[in-house]
This record gives sequence, C-alpha cells and structure tokens, in this order.
Amino acid sequence: MSDRNQQFQPDQSDLLMELLAARRDVRGNLFLADELDQADIDQILKAALHAPSVGFSQPWEFVLVLDKVQRRQVADSFFAENQKALEQFRAGNYDAAKLEQYQALKLEGITESALNIAVFYNPKKGPVLGQTSMPDMGRYSVVCAVQNMWLMARSLNIGMGWVSILDPEKVKTIVNAPADRELIAYLCLGKVDQFYDQPELETLGWEARKATSQVVLSGHYPE
Amino acid sequence: MSDRNQQFQPDQSDLLMELLAARRDVRGNLFLADELDQADIDQILKAALHAPSVGFSQPWEFVLVLDKVQRRQVADSFFAENQKALEQFRAGNYDAAKLEQYQALKLEGITESALNIAVFYNPKKGPVLGQTSMPDMGRYSVVCAVQNMWLMARSLNIGMGWVSILDPEKVKTIVNAPADRELIAYLCLGKVDQFYDQPELETLGWEARKATSQVVLSGHYPE
Repeated sequence: MSDRNQQFQPDQSDLLMELLAARRDVRGNLFLADELDQADIDQILKAALHAPSVGFSQPWEFVLVLDKVQRRQVADSFFAENQKALEQFRAGNYDAAKLEQYQALKLEGITESALNIAVFYNPKKGPVLGQTSMPDMGRYSVVCAVQNMWLMARSLNIGMGWVSILDPEKVKTIVNAPADRELIAYLCLGKVDQFYDQPELETLGWEARKATSQVVLSGHYPE
Repeated sequence: MSDRNQQFQPDQSDLLMELLAARRDVRGNLFLADELDQADIDQILKAALHAPSVGFSQPWEFVLVLDKVQRRQVADSFFAENQKALEQFRAGNYDAAKLEQYQALKLEGITESALNIAVFYNPKKGPVLGQTSMPDMGRYSVVCAVQNMWLMARSLNIGMGWVSILDPEKVKTIVNAPADRELIAYLCLGKVDQFYDQPELETLGWEARKATSQVVLSGHYPE
C-alpha cells in the first residue's frame, strides 16, 4: 500500500471532483446483461472497507445476491412498496401530471443488474466510542461505506443504483439476516453503456437543483 | 464541466483507492493554526452538493462556524457528553486499562481547527421519492455529502474530523437552527502537517480491523 501520508496534487483533486459530479444513480433500463469481473467486485468491496466508522467499529455487512429467485422476491417487495408510495403521493396532493410522472419513472434495476448487494448495519452490544450521544452514528458509518462503493464503481465505469422503495424486513427475511441486523441499503450494480449527464430527476424537473446560497450559512441560521 | 459520461481509466480508479485509504479522522492535536483558503472551502462544499440524495431532495444544510464563543460552547457540550460516555463505558464493564485508554484519547478538534461545519438534515414536508418506505433515507443523503467532503478535503491535503460526542440539541441552539432541523454531523477542518498511516484506534488496538470474510456474505446469512 502506498504512503498514507502522501500529498495529493491539484490535478488529483480536480479528478475527484469530476468523479463526484459524474456519479449517477443507475436504474434498470441502463444496465447491460454483462457479468461483472470479480476483480472489480473486489475493488468495490475494498472501497467499502476503507470507509470511516465510528470508534473504528466497522459495523457493516455486505450480502452479495445473484440468485434469480431471491431477486424476484426483492422486486416483489419493490412493487408492493411502490404502490404504497404512489398512494402517499396522491394523498400528499400531488397533481395528476406529477403522479403520472412518478408512475413513468423506472426506480430500480433489481433483476436487470448483474449483481445486487444488501448492506446491513450490525449493531455492537455495549457502548461504541463516538456513538454514545448520537446513536445513529453506526448507521451513518455504513452509509459512508455505500458512498465509497458508489464512487469506486463509477471510477470503474460500473453503474450502481440504491433502491430504497423496499420493505427492509422483507429483505432481511430473503437473505436470512439475524433479527438484530438493519438494512441500510440495497444496491444494484452492473455494466452500462452510458451515464446520464445529470441526475434524471433534475433533467425531468422532478426537483430543481438548489443554489449554494440556499444551503450554506455563515455562523448561524437567521434570527 | 467535463463530460459526465466520461470513461475513467484504471490509474484513476487506483488513485481513488489510494485516496479512500489515506483519508483519516483528524483530531485536535494534529491541526495547524493556519487559515484555510476560501477556494478550498468552496471546493469542499461543492463536493458535498454533488452527493447523491434520495429523490434529488438535497436535504442538507451547512453552517460554517468560525466564532470562538460558539466553538467554546460546542466544546463545552463535548466535555459534558464525553463525561457521560466514560460513565457508559464504566457501566459496560470496560476494564481499568481500557477506561484509561479512553480518557487519554483526543476525540475532537473543535477549537484547534480552522473551521467547524455543522451539517443538518432539513426534512421536507410531504412525501419524498424513495423515502416513503425507508424514512431515514434523507439523513443518509446528508451522510453521503459528509463523506464527499471528507474525500475532497483529503485530496486537498486538509484534515477533517467528525465529532459525534455532542448533544445535538445544544448544537442546534448554538447555531439557532429551526426546530425541525436535525444535526447529522459536526465537522472540524484544518491544515495538518501529517496524516496517520492508519486509523489511530487501529494503531492503539482499541478495535481490530475486520477481515473481508467476516463482513462479506454470499447470497444469505448462514442457516
């Protein structure tokens, strides 16, 4: 391994910015049928294992799901939860055009992608350094691992999508997870022949990109 | 902005792995007194704004804290919460040596760092696409932004530490945050003259690094 104390150069920082900006949430309609190379899967998992974790607790577990039956079961949970989501949007007074737009969106790639990875939080018994005042810190460590995976996948030109319209308990059952585990993310990974230029929901006008001035404050919120 | 659909090269993926592995949680004893360049702060915030967010909700807010009085108040919260943490470790049957080790750790850099950033979750009223089944997804989007900041800071050779031994409600009061906001992270950033070769808690033997085989499972958990 290279020297961890190394000084990175400005062009390396620029490259990171390009990578952050080029990362996309990839859905089923963009995945190719090709298998992933084992070396690439290993590199993506290695990226996860180098994420920060509160108190160096490394409270993550990654279940690689290839089986078609399991994936069909997960997809069934998606369809059921997405129907509930639609009802919530309807109850939330979204107009007919917005509801139609929602229904037209492809929001997962569970069966089309080469690989699914279910990412769990494995809570430690007893106190964890850094987690005593903010109990969600362990979950947040697992999320940092997911973001590392997303960036590594993108640098390998592999698409990744995070599917969150799922019943976490159903996914736990499908992969036989112990009762104390908690599903943080369900990921779909695969080769793609393109990445969108900007987030699809931005392109479609589902939400507008916020200006920096809307979300960066100096010192405190206004009185 | 460069072409988002660009193909990254293997050496760029290797560079990302180096960066992920070289990122450290930086504590107060390593920060230098130097100010940060505004261009670097802007780049770190830009990295945050390119994080993934559920339903493109961008539910993050960043409060830049420079004021010494505010920082002293935050540090006071750290000291109070750290005392409570020590009591939890004592109640958790940590032995005398481990308790002594805990007390010797420098766990924050609130006043020593050049800049603090309090990162909040700003929940949206009404349903959010992708968050209807997993309500924590908005919080997780904010965590992805924090990880992007961490990596960008490291690529600029700037140290960042995440302080979680704090009372989130006290921090909200100190920066006048509205009642509906939720503190996700309190970050300390500053120039450093070195990064540790490996996580300090690994070096000190507080926790051992887990093997890949302990946390990566194929298909499902064992019966």
